[in-house]
Amino acid sequence: MNYTLEPIATVLSPFTHKFGIPRQPGLATEAIAELQLLPPYNRAEAVAGLELSSHIWIEFIFHKSPNSNADNFRPSIRPPRLGGNKRMGVFATRSPVRPNALGLSVAKLEKIDTSKGVSLLVSGLDLLDGTPIVDIKPYVPYADSLANASNQFAAEAPATLAVTFAPEAAAKAQAYSAPYGTDLTRLITQILSQDPRPQYQQPDLERRYGINLYDLDIQFRYRPDGHDSWCIEVTYIATV
Amino acid sequence: MNYTLEPIATVLSPFTHKFGIPRQPGLATEAIAELQLLPPYNRAEAVAGLELSSHIWIEFIFHKSPNSNADNFRPSIRPPRLGGNKRMGVFATRSPVRPNALGLSVAKLEKIDTSKGVSLLVSGLDLLDGTPIVDIKPYVPYADSLANASNQFAAEAPATLAVTFAPEAAAKAQAYSAPYGTDLTRLITQILSQDPRPQYQQPDLERRYGINLYDLDIQFRYRPDGHDSWCIEVTYIATV
Repeated sequence: MNYTLEPIATVLSPFTHKFGIPRQPGLATEAIAELQLLPPYNRAEAVAGLELSSHIWIEFIFHKSPNSNADNFRPSIRPPRLGGNKRMGVFATRSPVRPNALGLSVAKLEKIDTSKGVSLLVSGLDLLDGTPIVDIKPYVPYADSLANASNQFAAEAPATLAVTFAPEAAAKAQAYSAPYGTDLTRLITQILSQDPRPQYQQPDLERRYGINLYDLDIQFRYRPDGHDSWCIEVTYIATV
Repeated sequence: MNYTLEPIATVLSPFTHKFGIPRQPGLATEAIAELQLLPPYNRAEAVAGLELSSHIWIEFIFHKSPNSNADNFRPSIRPPRLGGNKRMGVFATRSPVRPNALGLSVAKLEKIDTSKGVSLLVSGLDLLDGTPIVDIKPYVPYADSLANASNQFAAEAPATLAVTFAPEAAAKAQAYSAPYGTDLTRLITQILSQDPRPQYQQPDLERRYGINLYDLDIQFRYRPDGHDSWCIEVTYIATV
């Protein structure tokens, strides 16, 4: 027996392309997104009392990921965290390529606006712009925050790199008027410090890498940091 | 655009009826359940590495709950926690009566058995026997366990009641051979201490209440505890 999911909301997010999206929510707190509830779910009564929750769970569809359902099941994937050369079972990871393509992210609830339909402003979200949302639930600390849980595969957040801006890119970032009062300089820094490059590639010091946020093309390059790692320099920002 | 969910697993659980199921996972740690993966998902490769996680998220369908999708949307519910006379928005609660009927529970992963298909033994689960599972994901503490999250609606686990057993019921509970080494006496105590009765009812001291676990009918009654609350006495246990 199968079940049908109807989207209850859609998301407006800075992440207009997959490359560069943080690998877990909460890593880029400056990533402010708007969840717009769809009719008939966009009624103020449906979110009454949600202001009592500091954080919410968002269940969504990885709508741009390859199908991995019964007729095309891919039991294992190569997590970027393991350098891309070791396999893990799909149910042992949060990979977007999974049966039913269901995703789960927690975000900080910043604002509830019921003046025209229902819109929720959240921060720290890691979703692609336009992602279909299939449920919103309150985060319940006594049930969800497990002090004694452990995960030896992903014990802590990935290490971060230092990020600098070339003068012209710094000026462009400061001048850009991002929605919801987002500080673009801080957002770019949070995202690039996660090192979006697949971990199994050595960075190519000659290459210009790029991510897209909003309507922007943002280019950067790697530089040795003098301690066996790299730092990132943002070299160029322009409207697409 | 709608999406289709295929169950990837089913659950064998002590909870054969809805009444008595704890209101959140983790409240009855002795509730041991088995997740049986369904073909073609029941391959050992699909759970390789899952043993690195102490806990897992289980996404499931509230398959016995009334429909609340677009054509029949119920925007608000009366949470038992609020005494049943105040309304909250469905997205501000974990109510099973919700659009898409998607549920989310965390459980402790006790054992992975890949000797014949794939079965996962978990504890602390709050799911009805036969619940369709649509995803299994590792719990990732650095992303999921939010030390600074708060929820003023459900700030802490509900208060518990003391539970005693009449002599014959105590003997029956001790003699019963529950699956997976479950201690039935402890399981009944954990469940009834949550006070399964709707909070807006005063307990009827003359009435025999009942829950079902496995193939058992378990009856109990309320007694004043002498401190403006009640304790529960298990009076009768028999096979249905």
